[in-house]
Amino acid sequence: MTVIDQAVRVAFRYPVHFTTNLFSPENPALGDLLASGRETAAPVKALCVVDRGLLEHHPELPERIARYFRALGEDATLAEPILIVQGGEAVKNDPVEVERIHRAIHEQGIDRHSYVIVIGGGAVIDMAGYAAATAHRGVRLVRVPTTVLSQNDSAVGVKNSVNAFGKKNFLGTFAPPYAVLNDDAFLTTLSDRDWRAGIAEAIKVALLKDAAFFAFLESCAADLAARDMPAMRQLIYRCAELHLEHIATNGDPFELGSSRPLDFGHWSAHKLEQLSGYELRHGEAVAIGLALDATYSYLAGMLPEEEWWRILDLIAGVGLPLVAAELDAETPDGRRAVLVGLEEFREHLGGRLTIMLLEGIGRGVEVHEMDQECILASIMRLQAHAMERGTTAHPGGVVWPRTASAVPSPSSS
Amino acid sequence: MTVIDQAVRVAFRYPVHFTTNLFSPENPALGDLLASGRETAAPVKALCVVDRGLLEHHPELPERIARYFRALGEDATLAEPILIVQGGEAVKNDPVEVERIHRAIHEQGIDRHSYVIVIGGGAVIDMAGYAAATAHRGVRLVRVPTTVLSQNDSAVGVKNSVNAFGKKNFLGTFAPPYAVLNDDAFLTTLSDRDWRAGIAEAIKVALLKDAAFFAFLESCAADLAARDMPAMRQLIYRCAELHLEHIATNGDPFELGSSRPLDFGHWSAHKLEQLSGYELRHGEAVAIGLALDATYSYLAGMLPEEEWWRILDLIAGVGLPLVAAELDAETPDGRRAVLVGLEEFREHLGGRLTIMLLEGIGRGVEVHEMDQECILASIMRLQAHAMERGTTAHPGGVVWPRTASAVPSPSSS
Repeated sequence: MTVIDQAVRVAFRYPVHFTTNLFSPENPALGDLLASGRETAAPVKALCVVDRGLLEHHPELPERIARYFRALGEDATLAEPILIVQGGEAVKNDPVEVERIHRAIHEQGIDRHSYVIVIGGGAVIDMAGYAAATAHRGVRLVRVPTTVLSQNDSAVGVKNSVNAFGKKNFLGTFAPPYAVLNDDAFLTTLSDRDWRAGIAEAIKVALLKDAAFFAFLESCAADLAARDMPAMRQLIYRCAELHLEHIATNGDPFELGSSRPLDFGHWSAHKLEQLSGYELRHGEAVAIGLALDATYSYLAGMLPEEEWWRILDLIAGVGLPLVAAELDAETPDGRRAVLVGLEEFREHLGGRLTIMLLEGIGRGVEVHEMDQECILASIMRLQAHAMERGTTAHPGGVVWPRTASAVPSPSSS
Repeated sequence: MTVIDQAVRVAFRYPVHFTTNLFSPENPALGDLLASGRETAAPVKALCVVDRGLLEHHPELPERIARYFRALGEDATLAEPILIVQGGEAVKNDPVEVERIHRAIHEQGIDRHSYVIVIGGGAVIDMAGYAAATAHRGVRLVRVPTTVLSQNDSAVGVKNSVNAFGKKNFLGTFAPPYAVLNDDAFLTTLSDRDWRAGIAEAIKVALLKDAAFFAFLESCAADLAARDMPAMRQLIYRCAELHLEHIATNGDPFELGSSRPLDFGHWSAHKLEQLSGYELRHGEAVAIGLALDATYSYLAGMLPEEEWWRILDLIAGVGLPLVAAELDAETPDGRRAVLVGLEEFREHLGGRLTIMLLEGIGRGVEVHEMDQECILASIMRLQAHAMERGTTAHPGGVVWPRTASAVPSPSSS
């Protein structure tokens, strides 16, 4: 028997732009990007996919896009019609949406050197990214994320996905985009909930990697909560930069191993989102997941009490929740549902459980087991703390505790 | 406006084994592979997908696989049932097949550290590879190719695909396998057509890269045609090795640019396959495509006449066709259909047309245009040559010229 040991190295590059009013005629970012990728005399072709949720505040967006392309003249052609797709998690649950984009790519002759430009929130970008990555083994994807969460986190990375068989992100690929264009003008029309929800991932990455960024967030927590744009711009830039650095330097950008440092706080967050029927925003669930794992780190003797307090102060200070009723939810057979989330997380990673905890602000550390009793104690401690603060409701409007039967009696905490 | 320029490097490794009787209990290759990838005390899980076409000559294969896994004991668990899928191009046309594998991955709890093992011809491997690459953003894929063509070419590379919208390989990804296990025992039960068809890709890669390998093929052409296994083993090993070297060293393994050197002879081959309603095997169409582009290279003054003769001698010598009736097919609007294939090939690559031709045996060269008159002249020259040789039928049984109306009168050639 003979063996050839094959090694394949692939190098990707993509720019992440931070701009304002991407589709105003005087903004050259998109036009320059398309021109720089042109390889023949023929105009480059672009298919646009727009999140329907944007049209409420930006009803003129499709016409602005069409006008922008008309101004590019011979350089680029807009494939028409622009595809309008539903926004939010629903777009990832309906296989018809991926099929619609595949069909448009086929009918409009979008090839591997043409573009799919997707404008919207993280869910729409995930879905359109999956469609673009699988047509012709990958057409050029330009992401224009329009929420805080997508601009500082999900849309700058190398993943895409849709849901299937009731499992979040069951289908997807690793596929770097051709470019990311962050336009902060879209942030001005976000709801307060969406504005704040995106802050959770910035707190997360600051906790893992950058104490100075954490201090910056503390210094402008009130401004961020009050929708100060210059503060938000700094938050998004630094958060995106830390994410990009991590992907570029962690040695496993396509996650072939079991380590997933950026999933700090996410084992419980994924479960809480699901238990809430996606009433909790992803960022809100992450805020609770961070508070829980910070509390666990403190109770396990890894994190000093003062730093634990600073973390809870910052999360609450920007208007994010520390707890939700779903922390008390039980499975039909009487297990605490959030603990089931830990097992599901291990299954999702495959192989060995790997969880990120904190040794200090800015200093994450990996562990390979979590103690169930300590998790339950952390939940109770966090709930008691939140009650003292009076921050027992999350912005979704579900008041904790949701039902009398789910209330742990004070004597038990 | 600010820009972050992101660079992502991804490194993949996978072994390509050459073995015999992979599923006999004493063959350690698969067991060792699964054991080496084990990360926890729990047995690793493997889902097997088997090409139905194999069962005709290997009806006991599913039971042999099950027995092999039972012998591995606690090391590995076979997810049951083994999935039996239809063979040949049909499997890539039916979206239900991909969905079936996705569903089995979901139901059997196959995670990113579990395995999908696919055993079959190139089409089944392409389809199952696409399913495996898109579930959980990629579960570990072990390919067990069972034809000459898949063992020396398609299954050692980094692509997968299915057909959609009537377009071959419209959906797919670039995704290196976890391992490739070439078992030559499967070759003994191939039909003569399938045995020979796989030789075309070896001739192709020899023409592009390795004059000594071409000379080796010439030296054993009669043996290869007569199904000599030692000669075929050498052919498969060297052809696979040249492919793997190319992928590892060409600088663009995921084909982000327009250059596609290994597609030598393929612009016409893809079209001829389609025109024949896939009656022509891929390898047969490639043989004709090689003969055509060698003839073009000769007529264009790039390739010495003697080398042109050697190429046609080798193709015919191993029992592959030089021509097919489809070379004369016309579109409804009276164009030569094969020329339409050139335009489709450009569209498939996207951007600029890039075609590989020959300066000599073992020396490919890229050009960016082909002259239509010279292509038509090459077809006529090749047809005349094939008539003189009396090799005017291809093994599919379609006699050239297929219809009287398609016969170019001798005076026109």
